[in-house]
Amino acid sequence: MADQDDLSRLVDSMLASYRSDARGRQIGKKFMPSRGEILAIVDLLLQVFYPGYFGRQDLEENAVEAHLHELLGTLRDKLTTQIELCLCFCDESAGRSTRACLEHAREQAARLLARLPEIRATLIADVQAAYDGDPAADSLDEVILAYPGLLAVTVHRVAHELYAMGVPLMPRIMSEWAHAQTGADIHPGASIGPSFFIDHATGVVVGETTSIGRGVKLYQGVTLGALSVPRDERGRVIRGTKRHPTVEDGVTVYANTTVLGGSTVVSRDSVLGGSVFLTKSVPAGSRVAVKPPELSLRSHGEWVLDFEI
Amino acid sequence: MADQDDLSRLVDSMLASYRSDARGRQIGKKFMPSRGEILAIVDLLLQVFYPGYFGRQDLEENAVEAHLHELLGTLRDKLTTQIELCLCFCDESAGRSTRACLEHAREQAARLLARLPEIRATLIADVQAAYDGDPAADSLDEVILAYPGLLAVTVHRVAHELYAMGVPLMPRIMSEWAHAQTGADIHPGASIGPSFFIDHATGVVVGETTSIGRGVKLYQGVTLGALSVPRDERGRVIRGTKRHPTVEDGVTVYANTTVLGGSTVVSRDSVLGGSVFLTKSVPAGSRVAVKPPELSLRSHGEWVLDFEI
Amino acid sequence: MADQDDLSRLVDSMLASYRSDARGRQIGKKFMPSRGEILAIVDLLLQVFYPGYFGRQDLEENAVEAHLHELLGTLRDKLTTQIELCLCFCDESAGRSTRACLEHAREQAARLLARLPEIRATLIADVQAAYDGDPAADSLDEVILAYPGLLAVTVHRVAHELYAMGVPLMPRIMSEWAHAQTGADIHPGASIGPSFFIDHATGVVVGETTSIGRGVKLYQGVTLGALSVPRDERGRVIRGTKRHPTVEDGVTVYANTTVLGGSTVVSRDSVLGGSVFLTKSVPAGSRVAVKPPELSLRSHGEWVLDFEI
Repeated sequence: MADQDDLSRLVDSMLASYRSDARGRQIGKKFMPSRGEILAIVDLLLQVFYPGYFGRQDLEENAVEAHLHELLGTLRDKLTTQIELCLCFCDESAGRSTRACLEHAREQAARLLARLPEIRATLIADVQAAYDGDPAADSLDEVILAYPGLLAVTVHRVAHELYAMGVPLMPRIMSEWAHAQTGADIHPGASIGPSFFIDHATGVVVGETTSIGRGVKLYQGVTLGALSVPRDERGRVIRGTKRHPTVEDGVTVYANTTVLGGSTVVSRDSVLGGSVFLTKSVPAGSRVAVKPPELSLRSHGEWVLDFEI
Repeated sequence: MADQDDLSRLVDSMLASYRSDARGRQIGKKFMPSRGEILAIVDLLLQVFYPGYFGRQDLEENAVEAHLHELLGTLRDKLTTQIELCLCFCDESAGRSTRACLEHAREQAARLLARLPEIRATLIADVQAAYDGDPAADSLDEVILAYPGLLAVTVHRVAHELYAMGVPLMPRIMSEWAHAQTGADIHPGASIGPSFFIDHATGVVVGETTSIGRGVKLYQGVTLGALSVPRDERGRVIRGTKRHPTVEDGVTVYANTTVLGGSTVVSRDSVLGGSVFLTKSVPAGSRVAVKPPELSLRSHGEWVLDFEI
Repeated sequence: MADQDDLSRLVDSMLASYRSDARGRQIGKKFMPSRGEILAIVDLLLQVFYPGYFGRQDLEENAVEAHLHELLGTLRDKLTTQIELCLCFCDESAGRSTRACLEHAREQAARLLARLPEIRATLIADVQAAYDGDPAADSLDEVILAYPGLLAVTVHRVAHELYAMGVPLMPRIMSEWAHAQTGADIHPGASIGPSFFIDHATGVVVGETTSIGRGVKLYQGVTLGALSVPRDERGRVIRGTKRHPTVEDGVTVYANTTVLGGSTVVSRDSVLGGSVFLTKSVPAGSRVAVKPPELSLRSHGEWVLDFEI
């Protein structure tokens, strides 16, 4: 009895909280995209891109067509529904008509699906780049089944298409799932060329307006970020400017290196060593390294100065 | 037959291993908290804090009260049971009576539940701070549905309450789940003011005795840690001292910066640049940056010394 | 109707893509290891190593033997099947006979199972090392239930046995799962002595040919990596050389420190401070730290040079 009273009081105070601040709640909205369904779309895409590795494992040659037909049919339906919900949700929030959403969603789902064979070709180049670039890789199979960098870039290539089409929410939900799985946080806005490889993946951050060429290789902990948050004269954050670096073809960036700024260009075939902090452009073919760092070494109680390392 | 013998031998040697070292096994214990149920509690809390975003998505205005009643009722039951198990488990391990556990658990569950509206208000300020602080954020919706930093701080604010009440195990299990999801490792003991934002989240470590003010912003890879492990004169680790920094109101700490030590204070409105390593206090309004780092740049086979970057 | 035509066209172009590049697809292969089953094996191993903490929680003393019998029987079956699939899959890919796979798989599963009591003893030493090394740890229970570093090393010790036996794919799938859960990327090839502790875990990378002694402690963000990718005279990556450091007994490496190179030895009882970048060996008992870093501090509009920190 007392328990029931307590519970009712608790409900009342939570309701009062919802009423007092409309932010952070979605009540009475008709259109809410489903994170679960969006992740189901990612799962279907993995099955389409890497058949036999993900999903059905006993795939015979003569069963592939029927299997693919079913897979792509389901994918189209789920994509259309979720794109519609994302569009309507945001239109509704903005107070615009939601009439045109379904038609628009159908077109966008069809556009993405038509791009899948091309995306697959790019991903195969990414798989090969991972194998070619990592002495610890035993086989292409190992790369596909176990490399977090490949999972991150696979999800990114789809999320980037959706971002470029202007689909709201969905690309970010996809890329944050990949971030949670792999430790690599690639914003859907980043543009990335083929044969891209991220080794170890954890801690990599690639910002929204980053531009990456072909055959680029990043190691764990690399940040391609903004110098500082741009604000207008009234202190409000400015959105949509080029805030993140350009990394040209054939560049390698070793572990934990930070490159910042929208006008910073790491020109083609450059190599940035580990733990470098770079905020200016470097010419093509550069080799940038931290100078032999000044470390203090104390051995057997004595400090050795000028320790060369 | 031989297979059965092998299996029996294996069972025997494993049993011998359990007998030889009682650590790492829980046999014959009556009270064992359930990680699955504790994560179910986290899931229910997300539904309460952000209704419509998590859990039921078709929530109509007139259904909210009944929905909330059910949600909070389930939450209260699960919380009471798991707090009881955590308390009894630890009391039993310590050889103390477990009689008072249930009563104590009921009180603590009620205390946490009564705090939920206030915690929600703080979380809404965190959501707004994330949107205001990140040019890549499109909407509050995107922050709630896809920002790992918000998930980490949401779980932390509850875990910290439980930690402050002295509930064992449960807060740490919650915060380690959030760590696995987001890459941000915030110890439940850390005290954090409102309007807190962690961008990208991966690699952030905030130690047990850290104190963070209002409106603080951290980027990926920031460590607020201890200088070294304190030990007593017999070499045993000392627990419970202030080992981690104080970060005052309005401070921003950029990516991969490390701040160490229990007496280190980053005073109000300071900005620490990226990749800084700081072990001493700085006054209010400071701007700390790595000096133009000495890098070696080789371009077209020639080393360019004094490369300014 | 038009929709059906579109779908058929899409299926055709995807089939054409599969035909044009055989990489990244597994069609008509009889032997494909199952990631799900391999993760089920990891789950069973956790139940065997830490009974009562994982899996059945109401384990009474007199039920342990029957429980263990069932657990180990299931484990043996699953291990045998998945090792067989991994061996056959790779033999088939290499065009070799798969006849001997099952026999070989039985032997390897038996060898791993026979090693479990010894692995458990090592893991208990790891649990104790975590508790002894972390002032924030409340109990051994907390370490087992919530420390990502322990999960990472638990999975590693099994993956390393499988790697040493020459089982393909399975060890890497296990260790990448642990990487996703914990943020620590330990290659199954790395050799690691007992009483090993990784605090916070996120961002730790330990390369394939790393050798780590007894009683070593790593903090978050530590890389034990390769200096650069070794290539032969034709530019092809060389696999199998010692590329990663040796870390001897009793060494502690603080957060975000990088140690690179196959001939780099961190000799016994050394301590590497945080954010160190090390590519040369240091003698026993060394203390290596970044020199008081040169930082720029601006306070109240004035730049303070020679800021000592």
